[in-house]
Amino acid sequence: VDDPKNILAFPLPPPTKVPAKVLDVDKKTPDAHVPRDPRLIRLTGVHPFNVEAPLSDLYNEGFLTSPELFYVRNHGAVPVVRDEDIPNWELTVEGLVEYPIKLTLKELVADYEQVTCPITLVCAGNRRKEQNQVRKTKGFSWGAAGVSTALFTGTFMSELIKRARPTRRARYVCMEGADKLPNGFYGTSVKLNWVMDPNRGIMLAHKMNGEMLRPDHGQPLRAVIPGQIGGRSVKWLKKIIITDQPSDNWYHIYDNRVLPTSVSPDEAAANPAWWKDERYAIYDLSTNSAIAYPAHDEQLCVIGAPENYRVKGYAYGGGGRRVTRVEVSIDKGKTWRLSKIDYAEDKYRDAGPRELFGGTVDMTWRESSFCWCFWTCDVPVRELRDAKDILVRAMDESMNIQPRDMYWSVLGMMNNPWYRIAINQENDYLRFEHPTQPALIPGGWMERVKKAGGNLLNGYWGERIDGEEPEVP
Amino acid sequence: VDDPKNILAFPLPPPTKVPAKVLDVDKKTPDAHVPRDPRLIRLTGVHPFNVEAPLSDLYNEGFLTSPELFYVRNHGAVPVVRDEDIPNWELTVEGLVEYPIKLTLKELVADYEQVTCPITLVCAGNRRKEQNQVRKTKGFSWGAAGVSTALFTGTFMSELIKRARPTRRARYVCMEGADKLPNGFYGTSVKLNWVMDPNRGIMLAHKMNGEMLRPDHGQPLRAVIPGQIGGRSVKWLKKIIITDQPSDNWYHIYDNRVLPTSVSPDEAAANPAWWKDERYAIYDLSTNSAIAYPAHDEQLCVIGAPENYRVKGYAYGGGGRRVTRVEVSIDKGKTWRLSKIDYAEDKYRDAGPRELFGGTVDMTWRESSFCWCFWTCDVPVRELRDAKDILVRAMDESMNIQPRDMYWSVLGMMNNPWYRIAINQENDYLRFEHPTQPALIPGGWMERVKKAGGNLLNGYWGERIDGEEPEVP
Repeated sequence: VDDPKNILAFPLPPPTKVPAKVLDVDKKTPDAHVPRDPRLIRLTGVHPFNVEAPLSDLYNEGFLTSPELFYVRNHGAVPVVRDEDIPNWELTVEGLVEYPIKLTLKELVADYEQVTCPITLVCAGNRRKEQNQVRKTKGFSWGAAGVSTALFTGTFMSELIKRARPTRRARYVCMEGADKLPNGFYGTSVKLNWVMDPNRGIMLAHKMNGEMLRPDHGQPLRAVIPGQIGGRSVKWLKKIIITDQPSDNWYHIYDNRVLPTSVSPDEAAANPAWWKDERYAIYDLSTNSAIAYPAHDEQLCVIGAPENYRVKGYAYGGGGRRVTRVEVSIDKGKTWRLSKIDYAEDKYRDAGPRELFGGTVDMTWRESSFCWCFWTCDVPVRELRDAKDILVRAMDESMNIQPRDMYWSVLGMMNNPWYRIAINQENDYLRFEHPTQPALIPGGWMERVKKAGGNLLNGYWGERIDGEEPEVP
Repeated sequence: VDDPKNILAFPLPPPTKVPAKVLDVDKKTPDAHVPRDPRLIRLTGVHPFNVEAPLSDLYNEGFLTSPELFYVRNHGAVPVVRDEDIPNWELTVEGLVEYPIKLTLKELVADYEQVTCPITLVCAGNRRKEQNQVRKTKGFSWGAAGVSTALFTGTFMSELIKRARPTRRARYVCMEGADKLPNGFYGTSVKLNWVMDPNRGIMLAHKMNGEMLRPDHGQPLRAVIPGQIGGRSVKWLKKIIITDQPSDNWYHIYDNRVLPTSVSPDEAAANPAWWKDERYAIYDLSTNSAIAYPAHDEQLCVIGAPENYRVKGYAYGGGGRRVTRVEVSIDKGKTWRLSKIDYAEDKYRDAGPRELFGGTVDMTWRESSFCWCFWTCDVPVRELRDAKDILVRAMDESMNIQPRDMYWSVLGMMNNPWYRIAINQENDYLRFEHPTQPALIPGGWMERVKKAGGNLLNGYWGERIDGEEPEVP
């Protein structure tokens, strides 16, 4: 920490207000020990706790999300961990290793090099509400705020595994949490070669934005698997098991998969082979983006409006691949305009090695990108007046681009078609309409179009194509 | 080579017939020293030599392509290399290294471990003819056969670079060939950390399918960069230069880029900044697929036809990411059926370490996939009779899927929308029509639809949407 100016060159966490109070709704649940922020939108009733922030609140936080607004995906009750037991939290490394390890969190922090890194986590279900509008999936209705970013501090998982010395047959790293669920403890796996690859930056984290992990985020220890879906970043981590096969944990097999779109819910239920085909397991995130502003139901008075409206939002890629362009269309995808992209993650890269929150920020050597970026696109208001919608799509460095079409699958995962906001012209106002609202909240053009009998999968968002008659039934 | 049965478990190269004769067309060109196969389709007139095989011929070769049908992308004349000079071909490693290296091909083969690997190369322009039908790009008209696979033998580039000891500032590996062109020698670069990553398998190859490289494929030495566009695999390789910046070679800057679709040819010509933005440079291939059968103009008599028609083709992913599903639609993308995939590359993986063509095949430890796969999908002929088209799309392990929409850009690169074959019902026959034919060869539904005034970018291949009126002009 030589030069405070340099420190300020990269974003520090936004002001945080640690929730001090257990909310009334939580008092009668197994999570009665967990204080929470009331702004979070609950997606699965009261319990278990699965939440996202309102999209505008999330975006307004900026690059880093405060832990109280960071999305949460809990499969069951949050394990009770007393403060005094935290230093003695035990983690094991076992399975196909020459030297099995059992160590406490205290030892992990003391004996291993600590690093701090900004990492975006995204739930595989982000934007699933849109899929549920088309046809009910087995998953609950995430809006577009199932994504958040924090500075995680901890050790590279590879350091621990190196000391345990995997045997020749070792291929997978299975992880198991302390959250006891109907089908056993939550667990999953990733490939050993990914864990050992420094460019993938797979971590064991005990801090988030400089403070101890909060209970909903895995206190006191979690895996953080950058560039991959949140479901691989096991919280309340207890066990690392090196194996020659992917995890056989129930949650690894029956969750976080994109089965072929032709597999119906009945077929998926009848035939377990679909679930055991590792080709359909999700690891890397796919390229995605969403519009934060205009917000849902935001109104723009065109009388006396400024010349331009600044459309804004986020985008992210998967597997460390960087978003290289974000494009906006206001003519249904006929033409696209280029957005400006702000990759705040680069500011940490440029800052050079330095200490932060008890870990070294050292990303100068790493060329992968594991965080979301923010983009803006100034659109003349006079053009918006004539437009029916605003579309956005991102492309990553591998030239993978968000598609027009939704890929519907049984679990409803990895939804990443162009994000579309409809524009409703109401007298002197433009009223903007997002595709959906999270959870059971009504609203959004998808609901409206569906009610009007539109086919949401016709390639034109179920709306009638200009100058063309509706489809003959 | 213990067990001949095991050797036969993976595909060996198809029968090859080394062209012995210089073709008449080549006799008056600077390539008058290069014997060639007359079946190859020339895409840029007679010279320079840019060719693909007829798609059916390519597919019929099977997993491995014989060198005489392997696609060729030459920017200029093929360097003349006399047989007796081959062992003394010199390669240097220079730039940001502690120990610059100069060595001959003979030394490279003698002093470094040799490996043999099946690798698919793909030109970034594969399927560009489709883009040229929409709007002329600056690139020539590849059909869907700008892709081929061979067994390459050589050394890992990382081995050589390790001995040269890159300095701390080293970030890029620039390569330069012996082909002298109007704007200097052909050259480009990739990231140093990719070259050093064993999972990426970047090679210096001197053999192809067990024989010395042929002149069109870089004799006597070339780079082979698996999972990336062919333009990075520099042929007739003379120099490796380690740098802290991407290559400043003219061909690196002004070729192999996907500029934003909003950048017009005029804008691209007027503003060099577009070309120097490394975000738009192409490295990884994008997910792609094409249908080989039915072939263009193939006819199927529906009277007495077998119950099913077997639709067949190829698919590939980029950056080592595996194709995990290939889906076929005969109802314009409303529903999709799953194809069977044959990943012949896995047979080498499963075979375990063994010698082949003077190098070790050892892919057991490597989990990346660098070859195309073949897929088949049986479709009932009675359903084909009612269908207007056959569509195919592939998805890779990162859930990146081929989109419905074409991404047009100035250079016309990385074209990967759903591959579509139109079905023409002609009396008792179905006549199948590919989107285009390569080079200036007429034919294909795109040409036909365009002539009829259809908008090829309307999301429905320019055809009228069932039951809907044409767009009001």
